[in-house]
Amino acid sequence: YTRAEVAQHRTPKERVWVTYGTDVFDVTEFVELHPGGPDKILLAAGGALEPFWALYAVHGQPHVLELLRDYKVGELSPEEAAAPPGDSADPFSGDPPRHPALRVNSLKPFNAEPPPELLTQSFLTPNELFFTRNHLPVPAVEPGSYRLRVEGPGGRALSLSLSELRRRFPKHEVTATLQCAGNRRSEMSRVRPVKGLAWDIGAISTARWGGARLRDVLLAAGVRDDSGDGEWHVCFEGLDADASGTPYGASIPLKRALSAEAEVLLAYEMNGRELPRDHGFPVRVVVPGVVGARSVKWLRSVAVSPSESPSHWQQNDYKGFCPSVDWDSVDFGAAPAIQELPVQSAITEPRPGAAVPAGELTVKGYAWSGGGREVVRLRAPVPAGARLELVCKAVDRSYNVQPDTVGPIWNLRGVLSNAWHRVPVTVTK
Amino acid sequence: YTRAEVAQHRTPKERVWVTYGTDVFDVTEFVELHPGGPDKILLAAGGALEPFWALYAVHGQPHVLELLRDYKVGELSPEEAAAPPGDSADPFSGDPPRHPALRVNSLKPFNAEPPPELLTQSFLTPNELFFTRNHLPVPAVEPGSYRLRVEGPGGRALSLSLSELRRRFPKHEVTATLQCAGNRRSEMSRVRPVKGLAWDIGAISTARWGGARLRDVLLAAGVRDDSGDGEWHVCFEGLDADASGTPYGASIPLKRALSAEAEVLLAYEMNGRELPRDHGFPVRVVVPGVVGARSVKWLRSVAVSPSESPSHWQQNDYKGFCPSVDWDSVDFGAAPAIQELPVQSAITEPRPGAAVPAGELTVKGYAWSGGGREVVRLRAPVPAGARLELVCKAVDRSYNVQPDTVGPIWNLRGVLSNAWHRVPVTVTK
Repeated sequence: YTRAEVAQHRTPKERVWVTYGTDVFDVTEFVELHPGGPDKILLAAGGALEPFWALYAVHGQPHVLELLRDYKVGELSPEEAAAPPGDSADPFSGDPPRHPALRVNSLKPFNAEPPPELLTQSFLTPNELFFTRNHLPVPAVEPGSYRLRVEGPGGRALSLSLSELRRRFPKHEVTATLQCAGNRRSEMSRVRPVKGLAWDIGAISTARWGGARLRDVLLAAGVRDDSGDGEWHVCFEGLDADASGTPYGASIPLKRALSAEAEVLLAYEMNGRELPRDHGFPVRVVVPGVVGARSVKWLRSVAVSPSESPSHWQQNDYKGFCPSVDWDSVDFGAAPAIQELPVQSAITEPRPGAAVPAGELTVKGYAWSGGGREVVRLRAPVPAGARLELVCKAVDRSYNVQPDTVGPIWNLRGVLSNAWHRVPVTVTK
Repeated sequence: YTRAEVAQHRTPKERVWVTYGTDVFDVTEFVELHPGGPDKILLAAGGALEPFWALYAVHGQPHVLELLRDYKVGELSPEEAAAPPGDSADPFSGDPPRHPALRVNSLKPFNAEPPPELLTQSFLTPNELFFTRNHLPVPAVEPGSYRLRVEGPGGRALSLSLSELRRRFPKHEVTATLQCAGNRRSEMSRVRPVKGLAWDIGAISTARWGGARLRDVLLAAGVRDDSGDGEWHVCFEGLDADASGTPYGASIPLKRALSAEAEVLLAYEMNGRELPRDHGFPVRVVVPGVVGARSVKWLRSVAVSPSESPSHWQQNDYKGFCPSVDWDSVDFGAAPAIQELPVQSAITEPRPGAAVPAGELTVKGYAWSGGGREVVRLRAPVPAGARLELVCKAVDRSYNVQPDTVGPIWNLRGVLSNAWHRVPVTVTK
């Protein structure tokens, strides 16, 4: 078949065709069976699956490919197959330039972390080196026409320009660390393979954020100060969207959003400068103490709602499971969405396998815990010997500790990897 | 010497003598060197050390005894030595009767836990079986003359009778679990000996508490609702006191005390009945999510203060340390007082070493976490085989997990013992 012929099959009535590699599939009968819902699979109708599967980690696995095989109806013609689909309109072509020191885990969407040694060179991570976790192409936002929509519970809504956001609400500054739920995933992969980007220890960074308090903006939109007692949520949507226009989304409990102490920001400054494009220009959410996935970038809308965000990333990703749960048995509805993260620490210097001089050894690293619980103790035991395993482990204010080993916290998605960090080194004379 | 001769040495001017066992010591030169302060050691001047050492766990160790030996000046006469000191006026003689099912860890002061099987027989622990952690004799309080003193920051104070506490403030009811910091200490002792009562897994119990909210009482005493932003504390003193009149004391941050959500109570009811004497009659503090040591019983006074309680149990006990800290190197000032406890779980049935029938196995137990973080997952993996080790481990809402093993969280005081609970059993045919 040609791509044009495949493109004529976009609805159940005209049959639903898709391509994967050079194979063509008629998935009409599967549309209603799609776990993510029929509307989601129809986004790919008449074209290639790859751009969608790249965005949603739940696909691209042996059992999905096996299932797909049953629906194969033919192959693309050799001329068509040679030209990869969609390159003529690469949705990532507008992404900004990046610092060459970043260690790239994925180019499209862009995901990268600072080298460990640079991460602990300064308490605040320079903007250029701040870890970047994009789920979708970076949107190009014209600041003059930017509007943030804020929806209260009773249908009342605000539409704020960037200058209104700056002028109407006092600027608050908060030093906060953001961490990806997948930080240190590569250590989990060594136990058993997991799905997700192979983050080393650098999917965590700290900045001084400046912006309006989400609390102040919600109160201006008519949200009552005492309405955080119930089970309501604040849902965020980004301006970053997939090919169908579905935006990135996430939510946090309304109680946290309204808490003066929690200091949730609608940030327009990062370390004293305007937000870089990779970090949400012109406005992003910053939720201190909570998994980075809720700090939505390129913020388009804020809405108070009785339910959590319906977004894929709130409902079917960023949740933790037992080591025994696999992709056949996983029930995303059964686990709570990750919000506060557990206590974490890692050694940035020396690096694993390093040869270190005999005598005194300087060890650098970081320690952090979620939910505003400060680290009360950080140890890095250094045994004597020619071959050492440096170990670091932290204790937070609730005296929660890191687990001894990775195996028992392994999970299919490779999130929440916070076992003791172990760095083998050899001592040189 | 006779005890009467020893009793003539009560001040540095007349020399400070004490007895320990049948030995007599002149500790005058040590008074100023006493780590707990000269005033504290002078409480024992002219008499026996035992009643004081029984109350403060920091004493009774080899290096303290060694130090004492240098000050020996003689021995009690044989007639005197035969009669143990103080029995004629046993401060514990007024303690209430207890349920015979309780497993007693210490009689004077009374410390006991319910048998594990009874603990999970009902969600609410019956008052008679609720674990009891007394530091001092149980005071006898006449409810008609009881007064609670409440001191605000500006010198304003309330004095509340029991009926005023009941009438002036709405009654709130809270179901809350209290846990001793030393729960499961016996598992730590098996790694290396620790100081403290050998609690098994039962130093945790749940009740429905009824009483006035501490928040409401503080506001009535003139505390401002917004004053919880700073670093202030609320200090509690009990009516239980040592021979010198020094009461049990503890404190919590003012922020928690004022939080409507934290639901801190001045409780006068326990499971629908008036407080039993062992649990604080007529009024005790109940601080949900926080170590039991802060839920002061037989409450005498509540005072808002810029500093934590100066009490021994706030300053020099109930803190966590590294496994490498010993009694020579411990610096109590360097660790924060335990408030919220980490995630915890244990198996109550079957018991370690039990023979269980082949086939289906019912495992009972509990899981809990501090600070209001609910348990989101509890696993009890049961491997196959003739000899099993049942393991249980819990995950809380911040995805904090229990540590794999006890060794790495061992501490000299044996607190915060929350490793996976392991129960070896054998399977019978």
